[in-house]
Amino acid sequence: MAMYVVGHKIPDSDSICGAIALAYLKNQIGEPAKASRLGEPSPETQFILDRFGFEAPELKMSYAGEEVYIVDHSELTQAPDDIAQATIVGIVDHHKLGDLTTSTPLECWIRPVGCSNTVIKMMYDFHGVEIPKDIAGIMLCAILSDTVIFKSPTCTTADIRCVEDLAKIAGIEDYEALGMEMFKVKSAVDGTPVRDLVLRDFKDFNMNDNLVGIGQLEVVDLSVFDKIKADLEADIAKLKEEGQRHTVMLLLTDIMKEGSELLVVSDDVNIVERAYGKDTDAGRIWLDGVLSRKKQVVPPLQEAFA
Amino acid sequence: MAMYVVGHKIPDSDSICGAIALAYLKNQIGEPAKASRLGEPSPETQFILDRFGFEAPELKMSYAGEEVYIVDHSELTQAPDDIAQATIVGIVDHHKLGDLTTSTPLECWIRPVGCSNTVIKMMYDFHGVEIPKDIAGIMLCAILSDTVIFKSPTCTTADIRCVEDLAKIAGIEDYEALGMEMFKVKSAVDGTPVRDLVLRDFKDFNMNDNLVGIGQLEVVDLSVFDKIKADLEADIAKLKEEGQRHTVMLLLTDIMKEGSELLVVSDDVNIVERAYGKDTDAGRIWLDGVLSRKKQVVPPLQEAFA
Repeated sequence: MAMYVVGHKIPDSDSICGAIALAYLKNQIGEPAKASRLGEPSPETQFILDRFGFEAPELKMSYAGEEVYIVDHSELTQAPDDIAQATIVGIVDHHKLGDLTTSTPLECWIRPVGCSNTVIKMMYDFHGVEIPKDIAGIMLCAILSDTVIFKSPTCTTADIRCVEDLAKIAGIEDYEALGMEMFKVKSAVDGTPVRDLVLRDFKDFNMNDNLVGIGQLEVVDLSVFDKIKADLEADIAKLKEEGQRHTVMLLLTDIMKEGSELLVVSDDVNIVERAYGKDTDAGRIWLDGVLSRKKQVVPPLQEAFA
Repeated sequence: MAMYVVGHKIPDSDSICGAIALAYLKNQIGEPAKASRLGEPSPETQFILDRFGFEAPELKMSYAGEEVYIVDHSELTQAPDDIAQATIVGIVDHHKLGDLTTSTPLECWIRPVGCSNTVIKMMYDFHGVEIPKDIAGIMLCAILSDTVIFKSPTCTTADIRCVEDLAKIAGIEDYEALGMEMFKVKSAVDGTPVRDLVLRDFKDFNMNDNLVGIGQLEVVDLSVFDKIKADLEADIAKLKEEGQRHTVMLLLTDIMKEGSELLVVSDDVNIVERAYGKDTDAGRIWLDGVLSRKKQVVPPLQEAFA
């Protein structure tokens, strides 16, 4: 029986590229594996897949009775709905430790680095398996995406070294140019339904038994949102009600100015204001220097809820 | 600030030797660390420490405000009582994934092998740090203990190779003889208070919100229990009441016959009988071929509770 290798719901490039890269590695070491996904690839991810000649992995929502290797999270809310009926054989991740549990021993490769694909590179090195050129390309793009081309505070020297190694393998001379090209694709919002934008990179968190949804849109210039900001705010309010969430936030991140505007709807906006030490102004807060949901947005909010 | 490296409550040799070995490695790579423990060393562990010239790590029960590296488990019930007030910076383990969570990214080195010290050896190799002779000795003993000198079904080829490497480093020619010497120390029960025996290797598990305590005594000949079995049974009944546990079980494991007698007290003995497919006889079940609590005793019981 082949194991499935799958990232989180509303998959980002790390989840999709990581599933492909890890499934290939597992097959090479004699453990049959198949990459899958829990949702549609974002335009950024599609750009990466097209550039290096990959099809998107199989869309598969149900895993009851299957063996599953989890990529890029360890949270029940981000995992397949029926993960409790599956056997988790491993987790590769770079986030805080979530609430997934297992009833049998497993392997966990979790490191405090900028991207799961950096950890997957360590797995290739551990097993002494050569990384094919095209897989090195998608792994490199996933790391540039997660680390915002090394600008994010989540970026570590391990990520930078990993990208340099992968660039050599993939034969990419100017990986920063490739990264900027990718972020320009990511910045295109014209013609995209507002709900699609809100959900493009959206994660639910369980914070002291409150459901908190946090989306993020990273662009090269925040002015792309000028005309649609009110629509985005109306939509996250709707999303909050639909999912019976305590709070929904949308981070509009300017990767050139290196900061984020936070749009907030909450049952108790004081918790959010306390978390970031700043008052909201008509449901908005500017957070200077904030690029990382994982490192700069989630932990203070988690503490404010505790 | 130095991090503390600490194993589980009622520490076994893997917890104590692993804390010492990992703290040494962390210090070598520039991350100040101090080994500690959550209880008294067992006679087996004391034998290992004496043999290789180590003091027991510091006894420390409270970790509020500290950075902690967790060894040999990922369960709240086995961790320091105030672990929620500490920062978990890492976990090295070889069990099922438990219910510890964190609010910040961490490193997890978890592998489905026979012993945490086998994983710690992988960490030394990853960082390219040489293992001192005496530390290789205690790591080797911890692996021989956890794998019952390679007889346990939890033992993997990684564990065997690791012991062979460590034996070379430690200059130990006959590691099986050392293992038997260690298990003979472990088998001595004369003169030890019954409660001390029950708690010598005792772990609490949360099974579908029921507290289940499972102890294990590994000996070279089960006849050592003939005179005290009734006292052991009376004591696990007491322990069940004192801790408001649903079930307490004590595994009496014969490492030469390669099987275990299970002593059971439970609010619902049917669950236990269903788990192992055998009826109890006056609160006892003989389980042929069962040596491993982790692999052969906990998973079926967890499923029976689910």
